[in-house]
Amino acid sequence: MGAALALAERGRGLTAPNPNVGCVIVQDGRVAGRGWTQPGGRPHAEAMALAEAAAKSRGATCYTILEPCAHESARGPACADLLVAAGVARVVIATGDPDSRTDGSGIARLRGAGIEVVTDVRAEEARRTMAGFLTRYFHGRPLVTLKLAMSLDGAVARADGSSRWITGPEARAHAHLERARHEAILVGRGTLEADAPALDVRLAGLEGRSPERWVLSHDHSFQPAKGGRAGNWKVLTSPADIADLDGVDHLFVEGGASTAAAFLSADLVDRLLLYRAPILIGGGRTLPDIGLANLAEAHGRWNLHDARRLGSDRVEVYERVREPA
Amino acid sequence: MGAALALAERGRGLTAPNPNVGCVIVQDGRVAGRGWTQPGGRPHAEAMALAEAAAKSRGATCYTILEPCAHESARGPACADLLVAAGVARVVIATGDPDSRTDGSGIARLRGAGIEVVTDVRAEEARRTMAGFLTRYFHGRPLVTLKLAMSLDGAVARADGSSRWITGPEARAHAHLERARHEAILVGRGTLEADAPALDVRLAGLEGRSPERWVLSHDHSFQPAKGGRAGNWKVLTSPADIADLDGVDHLFVEGGASTAAAFLSADLVDRLLLYRAPILIGGGRTLPDIGLANLAEAHGRWNLHDARRLGSDRVEVYERVREPA
Repeated sequence: MGAALALAERGRGLTAPNPNVGCVIVQDGRVAGRGWTQPGGRPHAEAMALAEAAAKSRGATCYTILEPCAHESARGPACADLLVAAGVARVVIATGDPDSRTDGSGIARLRGAGIEVVTDVRAEEARRTMAGFLTRYFHGRPLVTLKLAMSLDGAVARADGSSRWITGPEARAHAHLERARHEAILVGRGTLEADAPALDVRLAGLEGRSPERWVLSHDHSFQPAKGGRAGNWKVLTSPADIADLDGVDHLFVEGGASTAAAFLSADLVDRLLLYRAPILIGGGRTLPDIGLANLAEAHGRWNLHDARRLGSDRVEVYERVREPA
Repeated sequence: MGAALALAERGRGLTAPNPNVGCVIVQDGRVAGRGWTQPGGRPHAEAMALAEAAAKSRGATCYTILEPCAHESARGPACADLLVAAGVARVVIATGDPDSRTDGSGIARLRGAGIEVVTDVRAEEARRTMAGFLTRYFHGRPLVTLKLAMSLDGAVARADGSSRWITGPEARAHAHLERARHEAILVGRGTLEADAPALDVRLAGLEGRSPERWVLSHDHSFQPAKGGRAGNWKVLTSPADIADLDGVDHLFVEGGASTAAAFLSADLVDRLLLYRAPILIGGGRTLPDIGLANLAEAHGRWNLHDARRLGSDRVEVYERVREPA
């Protein structure tokens, strides 16, 4: 299942509106086939893995991070039917597919064909990997990651607006890799006009993974300049409108501080990516009001999921604590 | 030497104007005596360890974190002479004593008596342990630790001043233990008047280790209220005056933000103790201007020495990067 989870990461940010699934077929203790949802959502991971395993699928075990789909579509057959036809003996599933067209019927179809089915294996990790799909499904909007690069004292820029560079090259490279895992990226109008950021993915081999670019401006008449390094921006007039971003299951919010506050005030941030440099700035630009009534209300919202050193900086990933959907 | 370093920590904050030394005497692979500088500075660590080892000192190895003193005083004999008289065979020293009355002559006296001397063993750790003494010696002022308890976005309080509680009980207990290792503690007048903090050590067994209390006020006529929980404060009118704090080799600066900025602006902070809670406040009180001309100047000043989780919070200890004295 660990291998299937790793394969699933390859599709993160590329498979909307479908989930990014990973799948491994194991025959006699050896990997016979590997699959992951392809860009645009098809073929599905199971179809790809079965195609690679071919005859070795018979009697094999299939590990997949999501319940195989039970619905045929014009774009391909149902994965549950493919697994039955291939003669696999056992299917191990991380988590169920909430899609009403599947939601248990994929598992039922496998069991009905005499296949042994095991569920809830590393389910939490699978849900984290497919969080974009699941957030779109349950909340009707993309998963929102807010990136903040800060000094120890919480400054995202000096008082004069200068923020090049708070963090070092390792942190910036990490942020570029994060960008590549999102369908869309968003900045505030102030950041766009002050920095004209390219916001592309400047990592060898990932140049094609640059997300589409949005700018948040409450001014409906605002028209970003076209062309050049800062060209091709689309305008969003409110964080609430992110629900309408077609084909976007992962949105990366990069700044500045007032855009961050707008998303936090609307409780639309699911994942907080904090890059922290070991510097003190003093009197810098910090996060403005996010609508908290008191200190008690600030607690219990954020859970540290991951932390690591990046050169002399540090990245911390926090997840918004929410009631299960 | 590790044991000697650990013993030395017992005296931190209690031995001014003397260094907090730790010493272990080992005979035939067994610890025969342990010593650490006693409150007020006497007896010295070596004298205490030799007294415990008694006859077992003959032919033994003495581990001490500081070069044994070569100067007699009305308060006791020179430790180098005591070691010679006790007949130790070998002395292992972490770091030299810069005091002009010793500064190499302690080692010379031991070698002159035929004792084998090894130096520079875990010297950096020893200098960190005795940093209060060394800062007083080389810079003529106490070692200054600045404590800041902050949210992820760098707020030390909400906009209305409320800061109870940003961090949790584990972080607060850790801060109490830090207090016990300082001869004096300082807050700004604003913090004193808003919070009337007791700033005592509320840890079982350490109640007697509460440091003396100072308040920073630029107003020369300011008189803190006497008595009660907030009583017995002395007034300092400028961070530069910390040089005059007699018997204080370790000063703990606890807040608020403008007092922190005053010490940082004067480059008088040696050690930064950051308690960080996993919360976002937004629009809170953050560190004001500390006189940096640009972002480049902010870099390279702070080196992360230690970090650990404290409940759901985290403490990070940074040390000011300075040229060697």
